[in-house]
Amino acid sequence: MSLVVVGTMAFDAIETPFGKSDKIIGGSAMYVAYAANHFINPVKQVSIIGNDFPLEELAHLKNCGVDTEGVEIVPDGKSFFWSGRYHMDMNTRDTLVTELNVLSQFNPVLPDSYKESSFLMLGNVMPSLQKKVIEQFSVRPKLIVLDTMNFWMDTAMDDLREVMQLTDVILINDSEARQLSNEYSLVKAAKKILTMGPKYLIIKKGEHGALLFHQNNVFFAPALPLDEVFDPTGAGDSFAGGFIGHLARTKDISYENMKTAIIVGSAMASFCVEKFGTERLKEVTKEDIAIRINDFVELVNFDIALM
Amino acid sequence: MSLVVVGTMAFDAIETPFGKSDKIIGGSAMYVAYAANHFINPVKQVSIIGNDFPLEELAHLKNCGVDTEGVEIVPDGKSFFWSGRYHMDMNTRDTLVTELNVLSQFNPVLPDSYKESSFLMLGNVMPSLQKKVIEQFSVRPKLIVLDTMNFWMDTAMDDLREVMQLTDVILINDSEARQLSNEYSLVKAAKKILTMGPKYLIIKKGEHGALLFHQNNVFFAPALPLDEVFDPTGAGDSFAGGFIGHLARTKDISYENMKTAIIVGSAMASFCVEKFGTERLKEVTKEDIAIRINDFVELVNFDIALM
Repeated sequence: MSLVVVGTMAFDAIETPFGKSDKIIGGSAMYVAYAANHFINPVKQVSIIGNDFPLEELAHLKNCGVDTEGVEIVPDGKSFFWSGRYHMDMNTRDTLVTELNVLSQFNPVLPDSYKESSFLMLGNVMPSLQKKVIEQFSVRPKLIVLDTMNFWMDTAMDDLREVMQLTDVILINDSEARQLSNEYSLVKAAKKILTMGPKYLIIKKGEHGALLFHQNNVFFAPALPLDEVFDPTGAGDSFAGGFIGHLARTKDISYENMKTAIIVGSAMASFCVEKFGTERLKEVTKEDIAIRINDFVELVNFDIALM
Repeated sequence: MSLVVVGTMAFDAIETPFGKSDKIIGGSAMYVAYAANHFINPVKQVSIIGNDFPLEELAHLKNCGVDTEGVEIVPDGKSFFWSGRYHMDMNTRDTLVTELNVLSQFNPVLPDSYKESSFLMLGNVMPSLQKKVIEQFSVRPKLIVLDTMNFWMDTAMDDLREVMQLTDVILINDSEARQLSNEYSLVKAAKKILTMGPKYLIIKKGEHGALLFHQNNVFFAPALPLDEVFDPTGAGDSFAGGFIGHLARTKDISYENMKTAIIVGSAMASFCVEKFGTERLKEVTKEDIAIRINDFVELVNFDIALM
């Protein structure tokens, strides 16, 4: 069982009310890979980087069981760079700098060894590229999870509609769900979005948790209340990595198991925000993860027998 | 086992993006009573009204098992009146009119028949009055739950500190928890507030659910995702009524049972917002409540065996 992950590998510079990072490693595919590799090997990465991307990071990825054959290295290019500043609530942020660099020429080509993978995580890149990746599989993956964002709803809605038709699970935040459906109520939004292709919709609400919609069912997973959120960057991608990593490991894509997968995703997101960048995801152990998942059980578990 | 409820009985006029009410019955003690009476009888009401308060409403309260001996009627007075307009998000609102009327002379006197009740819900009134009610009990209630608001933190913080010392559970919203503790993180806020008297803290987050803190434990109950929130007025009081109603019915004030009580409170709040005022709380049946509580079980229940 293997997992293909498409997304960015990049540099980030992050400011929060509590601190400021140097130029550190970021990008959606990095967070997904470092979260998913705790559950499934190999994670087959599809991305593009410049010659400034540190070799040690590529070596570390490989050590973690991440296959980088699908990562294009542009010899005279610079890696994607993003810089942002979080507000006090840590839920909103301003983008200070976006330098696309090599990302502007991203044209994902799947290595042959990727083409029969059973799980595909389409990180947030241009919808036409996401579609192109799907089309290169020789056998349709068992599960395709799509991440996207408001920017593509504004600028590439037709392409986004097309790729949605090809996917099983869509992962967006609450304001994106409202924009995509033109409904304020998330329940109404979900009903509309579930007619647009995916059979499963996950709405991420940051510190307020995540909702899974499927047919007439709803499942809710809280975010873990934390003493401190140090850096929210990558939390959504870590969530995605834990989610699809658990599904790929258990080879079970039932609604019941997706609920459990959302708890795993929430656990990985809760680690991610404890330090800058991917640092915390890299250091957590299987035991840390088991303890954290148990914290989620404690958090929501109540005794119906006491009714 | 009986429950004493202190709070307002009033008129409200409510505007939402979806509709506008006439001058309807409201007030914290009304919502608490109409939520709690599904679980416990009698609910012993302590409040003050003017001669404009409809007799039919008092009769209806009595029919529902609410004892109104402790409700002072001021023959030449007018009942408390509040008018507000909700914003599109239904989480924020502007107060348009506040007329204290008889509330400005509220001086709660407990009837003798109330003085040995085991459960006390102190709705959001002036902290010095809340304290005065506690002092009139001949035996300290088994459980005292305190509701309050930012207004009293701004204007009567010393009195609020005193009454907090006398209570078991404090019920506030997230911004009030931040104000009371001077901490942004709700986990840090909870640690501070739990040193100020109450052994249990419930932080209400509206559509984002509620958190229960006790010692080093945290429990989270989501709000039910609804197609439409029609009128959020009284949701917090309905939550309080369901919470203390369940505890009074089961006579069990353990942490485990408080978790279940929070689910019951969330269920009652989810009914409250479906119609204007107390209308929906009055019409729900035991069966409706059982079905709704099961919706909460479905909403958060996941299979740890699938890990």
